[in-house]
Amino acid sequence: MIDQLFTKLESYYEEMVSIRRYLHQHPELSFQEVNTANYIKTFYENLGIEVKGNVGGNGVVAKIYGAKPGKTIALRADFDALPIQEENDVPYKSLNPGVMHACGHDGHTATLLVLAKALHEIKDELEGTYVMIHQHAEEYAPGGAIAMIKDGCLEGVDAIFGTHLWASEPTGKIQYRKGPIMAAADRFEINIQGQGGHGAQPHRTKDAVVIASQLVLNLQQIVSRKVSPVDSAVVSVGSFVAENAFNVIADKAKLVGTVRTFNEDVRSFIENEIERIVKGTCLAADCEYAYEFNRGYPAVVNHDEETEFIVECVNSIPSVETVEEAELQMGGEDFAYYLQHVKGTFFFTGARPVGVPVAYPHHHPKFEIDEKALLVAAKALGAAALTYEPQKAEVTL
Amino acid sequence: MIDQLFTKLESYYEEMVSIRRYLHQHPELSFQEVNTANYIKTFYENLGIEVKGNVGGNGVVAKIYGAKPGKTIALRADFDALPIQEENDVPYKSLNPGVMHACGHDGHTATLLVLAKALHEIKDELEGTYVMIHQHAEEYAPGGAIAMIKDGCLEGVDAIFGTHLWASEPTGKIQYRKGPIMAAADRFEINIQGQGGHGAQPHRTKDAVVIASQLVLNLQQIVSRKVSPVDSAVVSVGSFVAENAFNVIADKAKLVGTVRTFNEDVRSFIENEIERIVKGTCLAADCEYAYEFNRGYPAVVNHDEETEFIVECVNSIPSVETVEEAELQMGGEDFAYYLQHVKGTFFFTGARPVGVPVAYPHHHPKFEIDEKALLVAAKALGAAALTYEPQKAEVTL
Amino acid sequence: MIDQLFTKLESYYEEMVSIRRYLHQHPELSFQEVNTANYIKTFYENLGIEVKGNVGGNGVVAKIYGAKPGKTIALRADFDALPIQEENDVPYKSLNPGVMHACGHDGHTATLLVLAKALHEIKDELEGTYVMIHQHAEEYAPGGAIAMIKDGCLEGVDAIFGTHLWASEPTGKIQYRKGPIMAAADRFEINIQGQGGHGAQPHRTKDAVVIASQLVLNLQQIVSRKVSPVDSAVVSVGSFVAENAFNVIADKAKLVGTVRTFNEDVRSFIENEIERIVKGTCLAADCEYAYEFNRGYPAVVNHDEETEFIVECVNSIPSVETVEEAELQMGGEDFAYYLQHVKGTFFFTGARPVGVPVAYPHHHPKFEIDEKALLVAAKALGAAALTYEPQKAEVTL
Amino acid sequence: MIDQLFTKLESYYEEMVSIRRYLHQHPELSFQEVNTANYIKTFYENLGIEVKGNVGGNGVVAKIYGAKPGKTIALRADFDALPIQEENDVPYKSLNPGVMHACGHDGHTATLLVLAKALHEIKDELEGTYVMIHQHAEEYAPGGAIAMIKDGCLEGVDAIFGTHLWASEPTGKIQYRKGPIMAAADRFEINIQGQGGHGAQPHRTKDAVVIASQLVLNLQQIVSRKVSPVDSAVVSVGSFVAENAFNVIADKAKLVGTVRTFNEDVRSFIENEIERIVKGTCLAADCEYAYEFNRGYPAVVNHDEETEFIVECVNSIPSVETVEEAELQMGGEDFAYYLQHVKGTFFFTGARPVGVPVAYPHHHPKFEIDEKALLVAAKALGAAALTYEPQKAEVTL
Repeated sequence: MIDQLFTKLESYYEEMVSIRRYLHQHPELSFQEVNTANYIKTFYENLGIEVKGNVGGNGVVAKIYGAKPGKTIALRADFDALPIQEENDVPYKSLNPGVMHACGHDGHTATLLVLAKALHEIKDELEGTYVMIHQHAEEYAPGGAIAMIKDGCLEGVDAIFGTHLWASEPTGKIQYRKGPIMAAADRFEINIQGQGGHGAQPHRTKDAVVIASQLVLNLQQIVSRKVSPVDSAVVSVGSFVAENAFNVIADKAKLVGTVRTFNEDVRSFIENEIERIVKGTCLAADCEYAYEFNRGYPAVVNHDEETEFIVECVNSIPSVETVEEAELQMGGEDFAYYLQHVKGTFFFTGARPVGVPVAYPHHHPKFEIDEKALLVAAKALGAAALTYEPQKAEVTL
Repeated sequence: MIDQLFTKLESYYEEMVSIRRYLHQHPELSFQEVNTANYIKTFYENLGIEVKGNVGGNGVVAKIYGAKPGKTIALRADFDALPIQEENDVPYKSLNPGVMHACGHDGHTATLLVLAKALHEIKDELEGTYVMIHQHAEEYAPGGAIAMIKDGCLEGVDAIFGTHLWASEPTGKIQYRKGPIMAAADRFEINIQGQGGHGAQPHRTKDAVVIASQLVLNLQQIVSRKVSPVDSAVVSVGSFVAENAFNVIADKAKLVGTVRTFNEDVRSFIENEIERIVKGTCLAADCEYAYEFNRGYPAVVNHDEETEFIVECVNSIPSVETVEEAELQMGGEDFAYYLQHVKGTFFFTGARPVGVPVAYPHHHPKFEIDEKALLVAAKALGAAALTYEPQKAEVTL
Repeated sequence: MIDQLFTKLESYYEEMVSIRRYLHQHPELSFQEVNTANYIKTFYENLGIEVKGNVGGNGVVAKIYGAKPGKTIALRADFDALPIQEENDVPYKSLNPGVMHACGHDGHTATLLVLAKALHEIKDELEGTYVMIHQHAEEYAPGGAIAMIKDGCLEGVDAIFGTHLWASEPTGKIQYRKGPIMAAADRFEINIQGQGGHGAQPHRTKDAVVIASQLVLNLQQIVSRKVSPVDSAVVSVGSFVAENAFNVIADKAKLVGTVRTFNEDVRSFIENEIERIVKGTCLAADCEYAYEFNRGYPAVVNHDEETEFIVECVNSIPSVETVEEAELQMGGEDFAYYLQHVKGTFFFTGARPVGVPVAYPHHHPKFEIDEKALLVAAKALGAAALTYEPQKAEVTL
Repeated sequence: MIDQLFTKLESYYEEMVSIRRYLHQHPELSFQEVNTANYIKTFYENLGIEVKGNVGGNGVVAKIYGAKPGKTIALRADFDALPIQEENDVPYKSLNPGVMHACGHDGHTATLLVLAKALHEIKDELEGTYVMIHQHAEEYAPGGAIAMIKDGCLEGVDAIFGTHLWASEPTGKIQYRKGPIMAAADRFEINIQGQGGHGAQPHRTKDAVVIASQLVLNLQQIVSRKVSPVDSAVVSVGSFVAENAFNVIADKAKLVGTVRTFNEDVRSFIENEIERIVKGTCLAADCEYAYEFNRGYPAVVNHDEETEFIVECVNSIPSVETVEEAELQMGGEDFAYYLQHVKGTFFFTGARPVGVPVAYPHHHPKFEIDEKALLVAAKALGAAALTYEPQKAEVTL
């Protein structure tokens, strides 16, 4: 049955590429993906597959029912693009100025559509149900996943699998990781309210530039002193703005930054620790502050058994040459939410372009992928969908 | 002769006020004071006093020749205004939107014009020569003084006197100070060139926000540790700008600030010390920088004997009730340049408005003065001009 | 054969305990373990086992030759004690004032001696050679391992295994870890040479307290900004000394600290980064410094295959209840050196005392172990020795 | 009468020198000056002058009653020495090992004794009363002045004068200053109580070295940002001690330092500001602290009229060549207390040794003075005593 599926996927490779290129030419920003959602929905309708649009927003969910009873497996692909002006010179370059599929979501979608088509064609032999989750808005918090889940996309699902095309690794490599694989990505903003004045009279002011500078340095100690050296965490102040004339002392300063963690305890600890440091620093400076901590996606925490399963599963695919443990990735992904509700795993499918001197990083105006990797991703997800057997044991999440 | 002069000044008080109000209604920005300069020049021409325009720019210099030989005394008044929208509700409110005489230069000019008129009327009894220096562009570096001096306004001058109407002190008070009285006011700019990157990957960056924050703190040590506690100095970073998205690490940061000193050695020391601190901080952070130090006006350093003279002189004026030592003023004044060439002194003439709850500071949209102070200023400058006797000793400057 | 070995070990349990208690009563400091070495050597001599003393110092190496040809397996136990005054109230309390086996090396030695005795008794059935490495001076850099290796203790050895009794985990648990398991532990010392003076005259000094304080803060950025968040590293300044009268400004300050890493690249990077930060900070402060970085033991980096082997191996031992991945340990161990020369792995054998409210940490005056754990350790090492098969592939180290 | 006094003083010059040298050879530490006090008392007794010992401790007060009624003038000389081993090679080198008159108090005492003798000899012509205050313990807070005043030494006194021999200025120069002339000198101590631990586990600690380092930097902002640039102030941390092994994280750190100010408001402000900064820094670090601020002597604040008087007075002394304003001195003096009770002034009498390449600073093991300066000091104090006329106006202190 797997061989049959793989043969079909191979024969549809051209279609997969052409879908990916169409989507690449017509990128849409997060939460604005109306045309892309219609394109996906129409694809399923044309094949006579059950499909539902507007799931939690622009989300689309299709279902393929096997002839025989069995587990329910969800596969997820995201389909939003980024506010980046493409700089690649390719025939299928973005037609939407300032918007670009610079993270491979076009490939994710093409992969899942063609995989669905192939599964649909062998549905008489399939056991159980296959749920194709086409998620909008992965790039922009709060993301689409949380709303799609609320809207029922995981109902009855036993397990979920997802992959990300990964431009830094060669095609043929799959990377997995048990437990945390991608970071929780949060945003914080600190507004220091000092007291402004003339640059020549510091004693009549509360110098917001000095206070905020001190704060930036104090925040370094969270990672250097307060988080266990075996936990990974980042606290970065990305923006420091106190713009004034040269002969003035700043009345206020605004700091904005990000926190990355892999563990909810560390995450909450840092949220509170920043506040304590801000509070103490402002007490020392006798000034006021406002502090906001906006949680983005939580860490993507893969389930152990499903991760072991995917390793075995992809090891058996001939076109997969290397299967290795992924390093922790500091970036975020709202696939995290699915894994808080059902068992599953998220893995990386190598997609480094060949014949180019360097692989541009994700979110770069020259980002590109090796389209052969779409076939690898489709096989990996397909094999997982066909062979996964839900554990008997209760899941405690 | 002084009594005669004072009687004349008193009788011209109304004219002084009306000139001041006319100028107040027609303020002009530094280096753009064409109409004001014409007004001044015409005033002298109408009286038949020798006058020269376009001295070092918009500057105007008039000369009154006493019948008898003697010393040459210069008196100086500045006449530019500020880019401030007046908020006073007075009949003579500024007619020039966004421009305002918010520092009393209108009063300085009225004072000097009327004093010149009175001196002119008693010229047959006067010894020596009286040079009326009407200076443009005091508010904006490099200022008008330096160019007027270059253009010869101090030629043959034995001593110079100037005063500033001072809204924080009551009318009837004169403040003097030997040696430094107003600060050198310089500007510096530091551009940190780090290496930007993703907020989650600090190890691939050189975080300009952290580096610049560290720099701000390190700069505090110049005043706290490096300048003698009995010297007055200020180093203020007024502006800190590194504006970025929250999930980015800043590639660059721009710091702009001011240095105030009263002593050329301390000034040069701080200029160099900032650079050393920037250099060391950037070496520690393995990053690049650009440093600029732009000298504004030097400190106003009064001559001892002329200051002692002015104290005696104003003590003898009946309408002067209090004569006291001024505190060091951290603000700058390009009167400083005159005192680098000839002997003299610069003093403050109290001009606090009466009947108002609070005296707004100089450069405030509601700044106002007590016009009675113009008469005090005219008498003080007039008495100085008439009674000053140049020292025999050579001036070594 | 394994069953036979285990039965023997069980029957010798009392002897194992009595050896451990004897050693506990007679602890000797690192590099001074003459009596302990003699005790070990005599033990082997009495059994007629080939033994050699003074290997690389006080080290002792015994060899048991199986009747049949085969691999050569080394097992290592360390035997030095610590400069700590024991506070336990036990019959076998240390008789050597101020010296204590507070890290379990007494147990390591007893385990290996009795295991050797048991192996010796079944040597006619054994294949290959068994090398018992009794190492002196593990607690004090440069440690004994490096000299014993130089003196030939690893000659002909195919693989090495070692374990540490681990008081924080219960008896019956074994913890393993592929790759790095214990940290490289280095020491650094920074001497700041400023310029002292009177506390009231900072401008005539270079304040070493301020400079060193700045340095301490700057060093925080190595971990917070410069090391990848997925690498574990610690930079701690443990000691800051600039002792002076209150009204003095310090001429010098001494900082001493430690660096912990798991990766040679990170280790060297930090060594250099500290120096750059010291250099830049001292340039900014116009002062001198001396910097020393003294490398302690490198990280203990377990070999993958031998670690997988030990997991399988201990899983088959009935008295082992739990086998789990160890967390990274920030402490150091000179077992690291053996693994730089031959394949092998180092693991933890749980040894938490029972019936006590709390397990005191290693190096504590009340440190204690559960002696039952000695039997577990002996079985684990014995099973590894008997069943390990060297890989065909060449080891590239 | 003044001429008569001066002639006498000149004729007693040798005696003055010999007294000074005797005292120099027999220095005694603050609060332990029993022999010196006896020496002084005996001197007066031998002359038949009214004298009282044990005034507020080791203090001695003598009184000379003029034949005619008049004001009561106090003159003060201190007589304690310092815990310094003399390194001068002179015939009158200290015979008391480790104790030395390294601040000129020997000269002060000799000056006052001989002046008293001379005044006593002309007492039939004198008006009023002359109080000779020989004060113990000037070098060591709380000092002797406060206790002597409590014990009545200022009773009935109209004004007090005192001088300090000043080794940095040449003999023949007198330096005066209205208002503040010497600083308030206070001591502070901050004990940070963090939480210690292993150097490899910062997350389980509160690192006292980092916290105290941060504090040292934060304290710099008091002078750089919080005190007016025209006020002089110093905050110096002289001592930072957190001594530990290299692989430990410090549980506590001790900072000790000094604050110098010239103004009670600034002094109290800084006392409070340090506490706020400590409090805020410790709140940010979630740790405890103890803060002590021990006030030393207040600033010496000279009275305006008495200072103007002394200038006139010393200007009329032929051997005084230069009279100039003193710079603010950051050192402390308990003469401050007398000026809080009665009017008066404290001035410096130049006493730079001639023929030496450099004048060693006060408190240096090679400190020396020009003995000719004793005569100048005696004349200055004598002239002041004879010619001072108390103001009619009430003193409000």
